[in-house]
Amino acid sequence: MTELAIGIDGGGSSCRAAVADSKGNVLGRGKAGPANILSDLDNSLLNIISSAREALRDAGLPAETVSKVSAVVGVAGANVGDYRARIEHALPFADGHVVTDALIALEGALGDSDGVIGAFGTGSVYNARRDGKLRGIGGWGFVVGDQASGARLGRDLLEKSLLAYDKVRPSSPLTVKLMTEYGDDPERVVEFAHASKPKEFARYAPLVFDYAAQGDEIAIGIIKDAAAAIGDNLDALLWPECPAICLLGGLAKAYEPWLAERHKVLLREPKGDVLQGAIDLALKFLQERQKGAA
Amino acid sequence: MTELAIGIDGGGSSCRAAVADSKGNVLGRGKAGPANILSDLDNSLLNIISSAREALRDAGLPAETVSKVSAVVGVAGANVGDYRARIEHALPFADGHVVTDALIALEGALGDSDGVIGAFGTGSVYNARRDGKLRGIGGWGFVVGDQASGARLGRDLLEKSLLAYDKVRPSSPLTVKLMTEYGDDPERVVEFAHASKPKEFARYAPLVFDYAAQGDEIAIGIIKDAAAAIGDNLDALLWPECPAICLLGGLAKAYEPWLAERHKVLLREPKGDVLQGAIDLALKFLQERQKGAA
Repeated sequence: MTELAIGIDGGGSSCRAAVADSKGNVLGRGKAGPANILSDLDNSLLNIISSAREALRDAGLPAETVSKVSAVVGVAGANVGDYRARIEHALPFADGHVVTDALIALEGALGDSDGVIGAFGTGSVYNARRDGKLRGIGGWGFVVGDQASGARLGRDLLEKSLLAYDKVRPSSPLTVKLMTEYGDDPERVVEFAHASKPKEFARYAPLVFDYAAQGDEIAIGIIKDAAAAIGDNLDALLWPECPAICLLGGLAKAYEPWLAERHKVLLREPKGDVLQGAIDLALKFLQERQKGAA
Repeated sequence: MTELAIGIDGGGSSCRAAVADSKGNVLGRGKAGPANILSDLDNSLLNIISSAREALRDAGLPAETVSKVSAVVGVAGANVGDYRARIEHALPFADGHVVTDALIALEGALGDSDGVIGAFGTGSVYNARRDGKLRGIGGWGFVVGDQASGARLGRDLLEKSLLAYDKVRPSSPLTVKLMTEYGDDPERVVEFAHASKPKEFARYAPLVFDYAAQGDEIAIGIIKDAAAAIGDNLDALLWPECPAICLLGGLAKAYEPWLAERHKVLLREPKGDVLQGAIDLALKFLQERQKGAA
């Protein structure tokens, strides 16, 4: 048994791992392909393990160390059916724990404390920990959910630009810019919309924030709608004594000024990122094992 | 040369044709596969011609009659690039005219008169004829448009049902019914949403209207949003002396009570359907030919 802990963030676009000593000093990092356990368990397992092995290599540790460490893997879907047990069974670690992506995000942002986190990137999802109990909402994807996601901001911009093109609703510098990008041809906008994945819609999100900051009325309307959706979701999770709200993800900072005052006063900087949450949890398991062994 | 006219509605799900004598009496009808000229010109042409041949056969007329008739084909995309010329070149009729689907819809609903039409089925689209000049808006598909389409009503219902499931927004008998259909499992709702085409979303539209009529608050909210979108689109096309608005398509009647008073007073029953519009136009061309020959 070694005194090492590995945290793994098994994400839908890549797996990231870090190995730390018992004091939490990160010794090495690794990265591998995505983990989407519900759609592709076998490759997800390969990528989870591969990221861990790379972190050990990066730390200059021998390959066989992998069987001696405590590890925590955070991955979406870990709470579905028997996936947790199946993954834990396949892991090569001395002590491997599989938890939800929500738990490592909460742990990273809030440490042991209670609170609410909202993550805003291509998608949007919210999680709360109250008296140690977790509750998650949102994250249903941009077709019928993720109202404050980058993908929805982009889709809204396209929709409002077509309404402006048709002179059904007002245009603005932002809708003019969007239509100009497509040669002022609505058919090309529609073609993009029907061929694109959420990530491609989301590339318009920073543009919408930029124009909103410059006073563009359409951009402001899009952001206000999204911010209202954030407010509704936070209200659904908050309780009177909730000590903290952390916003995570690429759009977190951009949304802050648009939040309601009652939420702004609760905003706290996240302590660490999602991977840090996995490392911290793995360190806890390591300490438990050491106590158990002592 | 015969004194026959053929009208063809070249639609995205099927081609329908009817042959009429010079007085407009329909002698036979035919049907064939879809016409989507921009994505599959060759098969569209085959289906257009096949529907016409079937109408002649149905009328008990010899096959060679096809080369002696006046015909009008209404088809989406007829105004794009050189498609009109390419189709007219390939048609076997003595006198074949290709026009937009919007024109035969206007002609069918309004005859020669000016006015505005809105069509509400799986999609939604609006067309106006003012002083003989056409203008069309909407019809961009449900991902970034078609705000009053059946597909959008269905998508809205799914989105609001997930928000109710998460307790972010209120639930209603309709959202409870929807979630029950999916075993109260949001993952299954999302799975349906990501796998479904507009037509499958649109199958929820009658349910939303039913529940709205019974006072369901969520259903009423969804329909009011869609009706407001119809109002915005009509206002974008209307002019002070506009004599008539016709609503077409499967959801037309259901929307009527939800329209603004200023639009309700202009509502008129459509004179005929889209195919009738194609027949009427073909009869006009027949009369012109006869005048030219006289």
